[in-house]
Amino acid sequence: MLRFDLTTRRAIEAIDVTHLFTGREWPDGLLLVSVEHTTAAIFLGESGSEMFADYERVAANLIEDLGPWQHEKWNPGNAQSHVLSSFIGGQLLLPITDGRLDVGTWQRIIFLELDGPRQRHLAVTSIGTRPL
Amino acid sequence: MLRFDLTTRRAIEAIDVTHLFTGREWPDGLLLVSVEHTTAAIFLGESGSEMFADYERVAANLIEDLGPWQHEKWNPGNAQSHVLSSFIGGQLLLPITDGRLDVGTWQRIIFLELDGPRQRHLAVTSIGTRPL
Amino acid sequence: MLRFDLTTRRAIEAIDVTHLFTGREWPDGLLLVSVEHTTAAIFLGESGSEMFADYERVAANLIEDLGPWQHEKWNPGNAQSHVLSSFIGGQLLLPITDGRLDVGTWQRIIFLELDGPRQRHLAVTSIGTRPL
Repeated sequence: MLRFDLTTRRAIEAIDVTHLFTGREWPDGLLLVSVEHTTAAIFLGESGSEMFADYERVAANLIEDLGPWQHEKWNPGNAQSHVLSSFIGGQLLLPITDGRLDVGTWQRIIFLELDGPRQRHLAVTSIGTRPL
Repeated sequence: MLRFDLTTRRAIEAIDVTHLFTGREWPDGLLLVSVEHTTAAIFLGESGSEMFADYERVAANLIEDLGPWQHEKWNPGNAQSHVLSSFIGGQLLLPITDGRLDVGTWQRIIFLELDGPRQRHLAVTSIGTRPL
Repeated sequence: MLRFDLTTRRAIEAIDVTHLFTGREWPDGLLLVSVEHTTAAIFLGESGSEMFADYERVAANLIEDLGPWQHEKWNPGNAQSHVLSSFIGGQLLLPITDGRLDVGTWQRIIFLELDGPRQRHLAVTSIGTRPL
């Protein structure tokens, strides 16, 4: 297992982390990328500043709408981040062909911070595949 | 990697694509099914016309409720489809036993178009497993 | 494939099932955990009674807010559970290192019953990985 470190700067922040996976050659097959936290998520989506503003606004609104929170009593402000990150999910499987990331044309790897700023870690694991 | 093509006919459309995976023998283990797009999703769920009407109505309502959108300025009408597809997710792992799909009794493979009609692609990859 | 049985006691119930995966030694690599149902979900999240009350309340509110349902006509009360479980998702990949579950410090495996009480099953599959 390989780990990437990531520093987030805001409470809610969408970050394109595709570059972590394009700068080197990987074994063909699949990479599993796992967020090792309970208040952040990862997904494949389109990149761009307007798109990121939308991801962040929707996350902020959902967090506000879904309260009030019991967990608040102990960890002010982050129960909502737990629920949202759990529901969005924190794992991706990335196809690797000829050593390179082989996803759809518009698919970028997007990390969604929901309780930042924090130091974050992504665990990366390689899985072999078989011809079909 | 194998690719299935899929033609959707409506803007928001739930389609049972289980038949793509039942008509042939697969290597035992797991199949990874990945949507190669940023405005469509895939999940395991129950099939049927009433159920599909519910999936489609919830998707349409969520898309309407979560606006207004920044990304709208550039791609009218599909920022919401990006956010919803990212949050639902576009990957499934399907167990294969004795060459056949081995999911739960009521589980069907459902593709959710969120910005159609379009020509869509599903990437399918085979993964070996070990006895437990 | 190995199956774990699980008995839920309430209509909507978050259950920490991490203990199912910590009491024994697993082959190094990954475990795929799949919910074999269409009205329950699984995810990695923080545990604790306040946190669970939040998960359950959000699930109950989302289910109430998203109606009315077409599928209701045939299966009273569970169309919403289908939609919510499909959107949250029912599969997790768990890293195993030195025979033990190797997830983040606060990550626990949480099963979310959305149409209980019922007898539930989790399918567990072992996948080998390669060094990176």
